[in-house]
Amino acid sequence: MALSREEMVARLERGFNPRNVAVVGAARHNNYNWLRSHSAFQQNHGKLFHVNIDKNEWPGAEALGVPNFSSLLDISEPIDYVTISVPRQVVPRVLQDCIKKGVAVVHVFTAGFGESGEEEGIRLEQSIVEMAQKAGLPVIGPNCMGLFNPAVGIRQSAEQYHGEKGYLGYISQSGSQSTGLVAEAFVHGLKVSKCISMGNGVVVDAPDLVDYLAQDEDTRVIGMYLEGVRNPYKFFLSLREAVKRKPVIIWKVGQTEDAARATEAHTGTSYVRRELWDAVVARCGAIQVDNLDEMIDTAKALSVVPPAIGVNIGLFALSGGHSTEMANVFSKRGFKVVPFSERSHKELASFLSLIGGNYVNPIQAFGENFDRIVDVLGRDENIDVVAVEVSTGRLNQNQELMESRIRAFKAFQASSTKPIIAVLSSSMPKTDSTTLESMERRFSQEGIPAFLGFERGARALRNVVDYHSQRIFLGE
Amino acid sequence: MALSREEMVARLERGFNPRNVAVVGAARHNNYNWLRSHSAFQQNHGKLFHVNIDKNEWPGAEALGVPNFSSLLDISEPIDYVTISVPRQVVPRVLQDCIKKGVAVVHVFTAGFGESGEEEGIRLEQSIVEMAQKAGLPVIGPNCMGLFNPAVGIRQSAEQYHGEKGYLGYISQSGSQSTGLVAEAFVHGLKVSKCISMGNGVVVDAPDLVDYLAQDEDTRVIGMYLEGVRNPYKFFLSLREAVKRKPVIIWKVGQTEDAARATEAHTGTSYVRRELWDAVVARCGAIQVDNLDEMIDTAKALSVVPPAIGVNIGLFALSGGHSTEMANVFSKRGFKVVPFSERSHKELASFLSLIGGNYVNPIQAFGENFDRIVDVLGRDENIDVVAVEVSTGRLNQNQELMESRIRAFKAFQASSTKPIIAVLSSSMPKTDSTTLESMERRFSQEGIPAFLGFERGARALRNVVDYHSQRIFLGE
Repeated sequence: MALSREEMVARLERGFNPRNVAVVGAARHNNYNWLRSHSAFQQNHGKLFHVNIDKNEWPGAEALGVPNFSSLLDISEPIDYVTISVPRQVVPRVLQDCIKKGVAVVHVFTAGFGESGEEEGIRLEQSIVEMAQKAGLPVIGPNCMGLFNPAVGIRQSAEQYHGEKGYLGYISQSGSQSTGLVAEAFVHGLKVSKCISMGNGVVVDAPDLVDYLAQDEDTRVIGMYLEGVRNPYKFFLSLREAVKRKPVIIWKVGQTEDAARATEAHTGTSYVRRELWDAVVARCGAIQVDNLDEMIDTAKALSVVPPAIGVNIGLFALSGGHSTEMANVFSKRGFKVVPFSERSHKELASFLSLIGGNYVNPIQAFGENFDRIVDVLGRDENIDVVAVEVSTGRLNQNQELMESRIRAFKAFQASSTKPIIAVLSSSMPKTDSTTLESMERRFSQEGIPAFLGFERGARALRNVVDYHSQRIFLGE
Repeated sequence: MALSREEMVARLERGFNPRNVAVVGAARHNNYNWLRSHSAFQQNHGKLFHVNIDKNEWPGAEALGVPNFSSLLDISEPIDYVTISVPRQVVPRVLQDCIKKGVAVVHVFTAGFGESGEEEGIRLEQSIVEMAQKAGLPVIGPNCMGLFNPAVGIRQSAEQYHGEKGYLGYISQSGSQSTGLVAEAFVHGLKVSKCISMGNGVVVDAPDLVDYLAQDEDTRVIGMYLEGVRNPYKFFLSLREAVKRKPVIIWKVGQTEDAARATEAHTGTSYVRRELWDAVVARCGAIQVDNLDEMIDTAKALSVVPPAIGVNIGLFALSGGHSTEMANVFSKRGFKVVPFSERSHKELASFLSLIGGNYVNPIQAFGENFDRIVDVLGRDENIDVVAVEVSTGRLNQNQELMESRIRAFKAFQASSTKPIIAVLSSSMPKTDSTTLESMERRFSQEGIPAFLGFERGARALRNVVDYHSQRIFLGE
């Protein structure tokens, strides 16, 4: 009894927003990690239960304020989401209880199944699949970190944030890439709506999760870390549908035969020739990125930058040497560093006193007249999009300057329909990187798209322009 | 009377290692910046003088312990290096005094010359060139930050370090890219031997500086930020000679026509078709890089990594998800993620207990058996080069673990001729970036090549392998 698409989405919705959650097999040896992960849920949203036949583990759970049971079936309330962390040979028995209990979604943390390449693991995985399919039970995993819904405190690790939600919905075949994305994106001012570490994905597979995120109202952009896909036809069908509703960004590894050997060992997905994969993804209208940084920057840009298709860019740099680097980086990404309009030229000359009066693009000025230059760029009829270098070193030392820069960006956004991005650079003495990232978060909070350095800014902006241009060319 | 190559090198040597230095035109409005820049020189190495016809500026210099003079010619001692920071129309008069005085090298900080595109500026620059050439006086600039020799405290800014020297010799047409490289490289554990911000380069040009760094014993690797070259024949001649003695890394901007408009405005260098430039640089045997990060990583790698030409790589990752990313990144850079030898397989199986015993490359283990795995990779006959992921989060919390990791790398280096690199990654909860960089410096101090993340490591290692492979193919 396979679930229909609608039933699957409804089940996942219940799993992401449970009233009652159970952890089966919390243990001292991992410091009761799964109870700690769901503690934020317990404190603020619903009830958490611990199931363990080993009563030696009960006091540890009790100390965390979690009631103990010998079996799921002993719990009187209905259970929506279960995390299973027991030895692999016990998983089928626990799964049987989940089915009897009518659990909405099960997460199997335990590893050592199909991905081990070993006979017993493969056999056990097969029995999980058969039980789940027969019962119509969505199983996340095995070999994964499960669901993360920060809004309700369902987490993949006790170190993840909770109580605030973002707009990136993320699917990862890898647990460390899942928790890694959540942590790194947060540093850059991007929070997730939902995140799923799907592991081997033998029951709930990537297409199911794409379907879910496509209809999830909190998710404005979908991102994925993929090693490969199990069922290409089903995957691309879901992808095409999702792309109609929101941007989808894919970071795929296993791009070479050597790299695909690693994905086979990890999640069992095999080699697809890169050119073929790229062509099919492009036909579906999804955006491909090369690494975690580009994933984060592109997701941020797609959400914050207004729809942009023009490539005539106005650049504003803090020094001559940065102006030449900036022009090089943006023009290599396909932006045209066009001359300013005659009107801009006159306006700039009215308050800048450059010897020779050669007001070229990139305009270069160290700090002075920042607001006026930004304003001129916003009104220049030759320019479609604006990128402005901001020196975080000076801002860090001067709170009033920081506020005035933010006001200048906001004034631009209020008066011009052009996209504008801030490109944060270090300055002498070098600003420490942690400070750079805190500036980036501050700008993000204010709705100003900010990126660390020219290359990250240019790449993200390029992805935004490509995305919207394609939609316009195709009349979408 | 143009200087011969040998005379030019000798003069620059005296400029870099002066006994007496003068600043002409220090001023309150820039907080006596040039006196402060050379203060480390004054305190530890030689004498600093201030020349100014405006006696209102004398007390400011006196407060810094610097004696004042109305004219260079009033100073009784010989002067080796002069920084000129006076209005542009006064520069030729000061230069005349430098010539009379027999100064070895002059640095003109003042801007507003040829780069302004304006008639008076062009005329004044021409007169500087004529005076310098007639007198055989090496003038650095105009429109630049001059020389940096950290060993003696001759600096481009009071924020630069001094008293310790590195091995990267750096030439930059941009002042901010010069001070930027010095600051950023230091953060990543790379120090410079000498650095020159050459500005318009109308007298002392890039080829002169390449000649100088090629023979400078402290300089083991030469790096350059170029916007273009004024005299291609002379430049490539010097480059070919330099490459025979040490690796040369070039980061060139102005790669597109749009970007070249920015370089014309900045230092007056014009567009060269990228393919042509790339071909000529390749024929000279120099290494090209795309950005500051790659410059720093490649310079570090070339100095610390033993000469390597093999591309069969052994990878060691901390998680399954990182192993697939790592394999993808390194194989895309041309490394072959080959299977381990049968012997390694057996050895790994003797102490690792992976279900299924599938010890594939990348090997994946979280922390345990680190030393033994690294040791096995060092002895695997299928593998030419090794890259190991190190989680800085755990090291940061545990000093003993940090020391044991360093010992493992050192044991590898002592027992194997294979190159090994450390690839530093963050971990949960995300290690702040400033901590990551301090780990990178620590590893660098210990002679262990360390890089932030897979992509930076793979790119740097690739550049090392390409550099040495070319030399071997050509019998060098």
